[in-house]
Amino acid sequence: MNTIPVDNLGKPAIQSPLALKKQKSFISDTASIIYHVHKEEIAKELDENGLTFFELAGPRETIYFNPKEITCGIVTCGGLCPGINDVLRAIVIELFERYGCNKVLGFHYGYKGLTSKSELEPLFLNPDNVDNIHTTGGTILSSSRGPQDPEEMVNTLIKRNIKILFVIGGDGTMRGAQVLVEHIKKRNLKISIIAIPKTIDNDLNYVEKSFGFETAVEEAMRVIDSAHVEAKGAPNGIGLVKLMGRFSGFIASHASLASSNVNFCLIPEVPFKLYGEDGFLACLENRVKNKSKRHAVIVVAEGAGQSIIEKTMDKETQDASGNIKFKNIGNFLKTEIEKFFSEKNVEANVKYIDPSYIIRSVPANAFDSAYSLVLAQSAVHAGMAGKTNILIGYWNHHYTHVPINMTIEKRKQINPNSRLWQTVMETTLQPESIFL
Amino acid sequence: MNTIPVDNLGKPAIQSPLALKKQKSFISDTASIIYHVHKEEIAKELDENGLTFFELAGPRETIYFNPKEITCGIVTCGGLCPGINDVLRAIVIELFERYGCNKVLGFHYGYKGLTSKSELEPLFLNPDNVDNIHTTGGTILSSSRGPQDPEEMVNTLIKRNIKILFVIGGDGTMRGAQVLVEHIKKRNLKISIIAIPKTIDNDLNYVEKSFGFETAVEEAMRVIDSAHVEAKGAPNGIGLVKLMGRFSGFIASHASLASSNVNFCLIPEVPFKLYGEDGFLACLENRVKNKSKRHAVIVVAEGAGQSIIEKTMDKETQDASGNIKFKNIGNFLKTEIEKFFSEKNVEANVKYIDPSYIIRSVPANAFDSAYSLVLAQSAVHAGMAGKTNILIGYWNHHYTHVPINMTIEKRKQINPNSRLWQTVMETTLQPESIFL
Amino acid sequence: MNTIPVDNLGKPAIQSPLALKKQKSFISDTASIIYHVHKEEIAKELDENGLTFFELAGPRETIYFNPKEITCGIVTCGGLCPGINDVLRAIVIELFERYGCNKVLGFHYGYKGLTSKSELEPLFLNPDNVDNIHTTGGTILSSSRGPQDPEEMVNTLIKRNIKILFVIGGDGTMRGAQVLVEHIKKRNLKISIIAIPKTIDNDLNYVEKSFGFETAVEEAMRVIDSAHVEAKGAPNGIGLVKLMGRFSGFIASHASLASSNVNFCLIPEVPFKLYGEDGFLACLENRVKNKSKRHAVIVVAEGAGQSIIEKTMDKETQDASGNIKFKNIGNFLKTEIEKFFSEKNVEANVKYIDPSYIIRSVPANAFDSAYSLVLAQSAVHAGMAGKTNILIGYWNHHYTHVPINMTIEKRKQINPNSRLWQTVMETTLQPESIFL
Amino acid sequence: MNTIPVDNLGKPAIQSPLALKKQKSFISDTASIIYHVHKEEIAKELDENGLTFFELAGPRETIYFNPKEITCGIVTCGGLCPGINDVLRAIVIELFERYGCNKVLGFHYGYKGLTSKSELEPLFLNPDNVDNIHTTGGTILSSSRGPQDPEEMVNTLIKRNIKILFVIGGDGTMRGAQVLVEHIKKRNLKISIIAIPKTIDNDLNYVEKSFGFETAVEEAMRVIDSAHVEAKGAPNGIGLVKLMGRFSGFIASHASLASSNVNFCLIPEVPFKLYGEDGFLACLENRVKNKSKRHAVIVVAEGAGQSIIEKTMDKETQDASGNIKFKNIGNFLKTEIEKFFSEKNVEANVKYIDPSYIIRSVPANAFDSAYSLVLAQSAVHAGMAGKTNILIGYWNHHYTHVPINMTIEKRKQINPNSRLWQTVMETTLQPESIFL
Repeated sequence: MNTIPVDNLGKPAIQSPLALKKQKSFISDTASIIYHVHKEEIAKELDENGLTFFELAGPRETIYFNPKEITCGIVTCGGLCPGINDVLRAIVIELFERYGCNKVLGFHYGYKGLTSKSELEPLFLNPDNVDNIHTTGGTILSSSRGPQDPEEMVNTLIKRNIKILFVIGGDGTMRGAQVLVEHIKKRNLKISIIAIPKTIDNDLNYVEKSFGFETAVEEAMRVIDSAHVEAKGAPNGIGLVKLMGRFSGFIASHASLASSNVNFCLIPEVPFKLYGEDGFLACLENRVKNKSKRHAVIVVAEGAGQSIIEKTMDKETQDASGNIKFKNIGNFLKTEIEKFFSEKNVEANVKYIDPSYIIRSVPANAFDSAYSLVLAQSAVHAGMAGKTNILIGYWNHHYTHVPINMTIEKRKQINPNSRLWQTVMETTLQPESIFL
Repeated sequence: MNTIPVDNLGKPAIQSPLALKKQKSFISDTASIIYHVHKEEIAKELDENGLTFFELAGPRETIYFNPKEITCGIVTCGGLCPGINDVLRAIVIELFERYGCNKVLGFHYGYKGLTSKSELEPLFLNPDNVDNIHTTGGTILSSSRGPQDPEEMVNTLIKRNIKILFVIGGDGTMRGAQVLVEHIKKRNLKISIIAIPKTIDNDLNYVEKSFGFETAVEEAMRVIDSAHVEAKGAPNGIGLVKLMGRFSGFIASHASLASSNVNFCLIPEVPFKLYGEDGFLACLENRVKNKSKRHAVIVVAEGAGQSIIEKTMDKETQDASGNIKFKNIGNFLKTEIEKFFSEKNVEANVKYIDPSYIIRSVPANAFDSAYSLVLAQSAVHAGMAGKTNILIGYWNHHYTHVPINMTIEKRKQINPNSRLWQTVMETTLQPESIFL
Repeated sequence: MNTIPVDNLGKPAIQSPLALKKQKSFISDTASIIYHVHKEEIAKELDENGLTFFELAGPRETIYFNPKEITCGIVTCGGLCPGINDVLRAIVIELFERYGCNKVLGFHYGYKGLTSKSELEPLFLNPDNVDNIHTTGGTILSSSRGPQDPEEMVNTLIKRNIKILFVIGGDGTMRGAQVLVEHIKKRNLKISIIAIPKTIDNDLNYVEKSFGFETAVEEAMRVIDSAHVEAKGAPNGIGLVKLMGRFSGFIASHASLASSNVNFCLIPEVPFKLYGEDGFLACLENRVKNKSKRHAVIVVAEGAGQSIIEKTMDKETQDASGNIKFKNIGNFLKTEIEKFFSEKNVEANVKYIDPSYIIRSVPANAFDSAYSLVLAQSAVHAGMAGKTNILIGYWNHHYTHVPINMTIEKRKQINPNSRLWQTVMETTLQPESIFL
Repeated sequence: MNTIPVDNLGKPAIQSPLALKKQKSFISDTASIIYHVHKEEIAKELDENGLTFFELAGPRETIYFNPKEITCGIVTCGGLCPGINDVLRAIVIELFERYGCNKVLGFHYGYKGLTSKSELEPLFLNPDNVDNIHTTGGTILSSSRGPQDPEEMVNTLIKRNIKILFVIGGDGTMRGAQVLVEHIKKRNLKISIIAIPKTIDNDLNYVEKSFGFETAVEEAMRVIDSAHVEAKGAPNGIGLVKLMGRFSGFIASHASLASSNVNFCLIPEVPFKLYGEDGFLACLENRVKNKSKRHAVIVVAEGAGQSIIEKTMDKETQDASGNIKFKNIGNFLKTEIEKFFSEKNVEANVKYIDPSYIIRSVPANAFDSAYSLVLAQSAVHAGMAGKTNILIGYWNHHYTHVPINMTIEKRKQINPNSRLWQTVMETTLQPESIFL
């Protein structure tokens, strides 16, 4: 019975303001949630080192910081995602209205806002100026990519009296947060770094579903429906949709299930054959030639089929900056499909849609709004309690504390033998033969 | 390590057609998923009778029925819910396209369609005539409430050669299914009854989230947003929204989190005080009188405050058919609030919205579409495998087999000490004092 | 060839800042748009007093006010409507960014904000603080109903140096604006009153379509679709939807056309028979009893059938405050329908939906956003040019100047012989017999 | 007073079934609607040849065909557009339910379906099988482009006893309809060709607004909002959206007004300068460098800037099939903007979105649904009355009969001096200097 330990800045010794507000239930540090749920995995763990648990997130009765004395900071990093503004808003409201904090700084353009490169003063956030921000997508703090000098960032935190920094970001951002934590430790500072995982691709480990993901799937489904309508509207119509997902096909898979009009779903985790008798193109032809169908819908994640593209690129194309261009699996498939049908002298109308940013820059739907809210509240509770070096996870329907380093070990991907992928196979009715 | 046992019609002995289609992974009957996830509950179970597990749903390698020889039936019972047509469609497509069934009958108007009272012949369903039904809310089979004579229903099943009956419904429908199962057993028939739980209130036990629930919350959030806009648009504006939820406040609670503009959320599970110094009305007045707010938004589940209504009803009102009228908590609160402010000579504009059926008759959103799809596929797998007397549950992110009788023991409700309700308290900032 | 004359504060003598910005085209005061478009009406006018025209709205090359020296004011009055915030935003941006104004005051809670009763200081509006307001319904200035003392309002205008007051409101607001104009004239002040017509019911004369109307119809259609789904989902299901429209049935009519699933559409302008052989109830029964239909959808405007309700109310009910209650045509019809079917011993499931504020408190759709924008820009041009006592109309696809008094003579209503109503008859297929 | 004459197959002599149904009002052939509405144009016409009018559409009391004896046909041609299924549905319902027709054939894949190339039998359409089709975008009949042999098409019409052919299509389709009409006349047949204008670009003359246009603008606005969010979310973010519009910038212009977050709107009708001191790129830099903005949103119609692309293409690129590729103004602008900023060593994040088919394959919104419905009903009335060689127009808020040949003379485009374009200039605040 091992709960994964998390870092604490010190022993909490201050009664939580929530206790004074007659909050009825608090979460103790021993409360935790099981990691594995499958019988066979549990049996194995019981036989070996005992069951693994995650510490539960939530309000602690005793906290580490005096809310009235500290300043909190927030940065939003990496690509956009539905719900960031919900998270920002909920952090600010929780800090002010529940804990009685009155200084919250929003740094602009991600980690850059914590350095001297920043041209903008941080924004003083309060419940009034965040009141309505969640009705718009994106982040009011703007974002940027890439690491920054940790020394400089820590100096800013000190200068601004930041005691809790909320970091909203993905994979790369977590690595940055790690470095920041190390520098804070090295300098023996009592500054808490609390991360809220943000990834449109839903590819962070120990996070069942990232915020904004459902909204993105909703938008992706709309796009697939358009492709389906177009495919059915033209002779031998082929709707082709490229969706986000560099290393993980979660959006493509879930959107294919949600739409249920998809005939082929190609993702990075399951390599496929393009050519040959039972390759993708031949199977596509079968589908389109089916007299009662006469159309097809294909969904492809942007990271799918990269090895095929590389193989088929000849030298010349590569030189002419084709490199970047041809790695676009959407354009590549469009060209290959058109070539394939044209060589067979069969009319085919490929309707290619690349929704790009459309699926990620909308406001959060109801689920993601509520989810973002509770992630944010959990982050505030964690920070106030003096936790650090953690992200707020979501596991078996509970909010958890996960050490940041655990999440950057490797990316979450779809297991081809999982029920998820099997269900995609079941729903698309795409033949196993096209996959390697 | 106990997996809750489920009924089987007999030993499956036929190779699944999916195996012939090179399906890679099947689910064994021993695969199962843990029930409790909290450390303390697990510790307790380990100390006592061992951990409890649910059997996992999914395709079995060996099945009980020969798909080509049987007829399957479907009924949809009780109130509408987003996603019923998705379930219907997915059952039909799975039966035809994956298992090779070719006879599926849809009975009209719920259980009534299985009796001689039915004026309509059952509908022959096939992939073509269900192709587009999921774009519309409701159920193409229509629905009805109430029990029917089980004897007569079993006779219809025999007459129509129905070997698997898929029953889509809630609480009452499950009781009906129980009775049906008993009569089938008594008559020694090999007919499988597979239930797919449908409840807009999300109040079925052992089902983490019922299909259509998220869509309903989405619509409810839209309505709350309207009430919020109206409340802010008038002097001392008070937006009041009544939402579905007779015994469980899940829609009200989740919609309050999703909207995050709700100041009071009243649900059946947590009784409240209307009058008195720190009662609801006094706290509402405080909120509205707050110079920087000047408005309030209230969400009330239809089952909330029933005991208060009964107490305040005088004899006369009851006689004049007031009985029905006054049990409407929305109208009741509207009247009480107006009276309260009017007695204090304070202007107050109560904007009451009762969205009623609006939140449940829309098509499913992306999540619910995908969820309905997999529930349906799981139901088909279970039926084909000869399971019976079960419903398809969803637990810790996995699809499960749950004995029907387990779900009708008691309703799922919100525990006032749960994180869910605590989060609603945290988000609305409503005072604990108004609750008993 | 008569253009309806409008009031001017004086002769414009200042070159418009737009001219300095190289604006290519200006509108002259003689540019105007025809009133009648039907051949027979035109022939008649040509025979009699000559054709009638409305002055065209738009930027004038010479203006009356020096934008840098004046303060502008805005009030929003009456009920909410999609697009008010779009109008506010566009007025502010046009004044600042195009004309170089830098003082715009938003008064709270309608005309009340111009009096000493106002508890709030007016809001200084600028492009920054209105930047994102159009993503939310309602009005950031809040609204209120009812007239205020004109003397006091004029005093406020003087005190605040308001030279142009933009008044956003409906029927009642226009009457208020009239009184204000008279007082301004009496006191010989050079203050311009420019109205932007706002009416969710679309019942203002000389305004083809009021802003927000299309959005309201869109929402109403969604509600009707819900009622349709519910009606089809239950035995002899009858969907009944009450929509806004006290004196004019525009929303009910247009929503019935948009949904095209409506079987009966009842509006204030066309009285109907409830009882009797070919009355509404009998025809409803016919529809429901039709074996291939088995359901019906009814849309009723809130102002329809008022005379029937009055007739059927007995004395007693009236006394017991039943007055208000029974004038609710939705509840009344629900009761009568249920009684009618119950007396005939026919099962009928009436699904009543009263969306109330839902249809008017959403943000504007694309059309209404663009329309609100140009109305607002036209209002700014008119005010700057020294026009007064006008509202911005929309006629034959052009923006116009209409004297305020013309619009309050009588309400715009649906002519039962118009193509609009005939098209509703054509689409619902409701029998002529039910109408008087 | 000249009404533009339209073709009639002969003198109508049959009493309309609508008259038997007690329809109250019919439209006479003399009823008509004025063409010009501007005072100066009217004055000029009065001086010269008299005012011009369009014949009004609507039901005639006497009709030409006996509905019970004829077959009607429908084809849908060209690109998709929201509302086609609404039109199909309404034609069928009007023919069956109002006129008593009982044979309506839907030909597949446009004009091709009227030839021997068609592999599919035409579909027998009736109120049941079109009941729910309008909830999905596209056309259930599918579509295709290009002309077909008119002789063969006429033969099919004869063979199938088609007396009225409803043709739904745009520019090219109208030319095809013209040829068909000529062949029908030459062969002395009494077959009516009634066109319903369909163009997503809204570029058909004498049609104020084409059906589906508003829906497309709504979707385009959503996409622009995404681009706006992305632009604000990154350092020096530049949102770039390419919208449909080969020769006319109506979608780009109206979507820019609707979104009101657009800083540059480029359309085919108004050529622009890319380079140079006051060219587009320099002005874009100014906007982005503005410290209080730091972002920009650009909307470009696909037909804009074609002459610039041609000039900048060097020989080599043209040869390598670059021809097609480089005419993509979206990609071209993206490249040029990135090059421009990179040469200046200024960070710029161009977020390019090409929604392509997304904006046209959705179901119609409420306005377009109602509009499509009445267009269809008007088409049926016209066909039944023996009109031919016309399209159903919409002018000054009335449905009209327009000779087909009038609409193909030239395309409707935006006049740079029109209020529409001036309003776009006013709203985007883009400088006049960038336009030639």
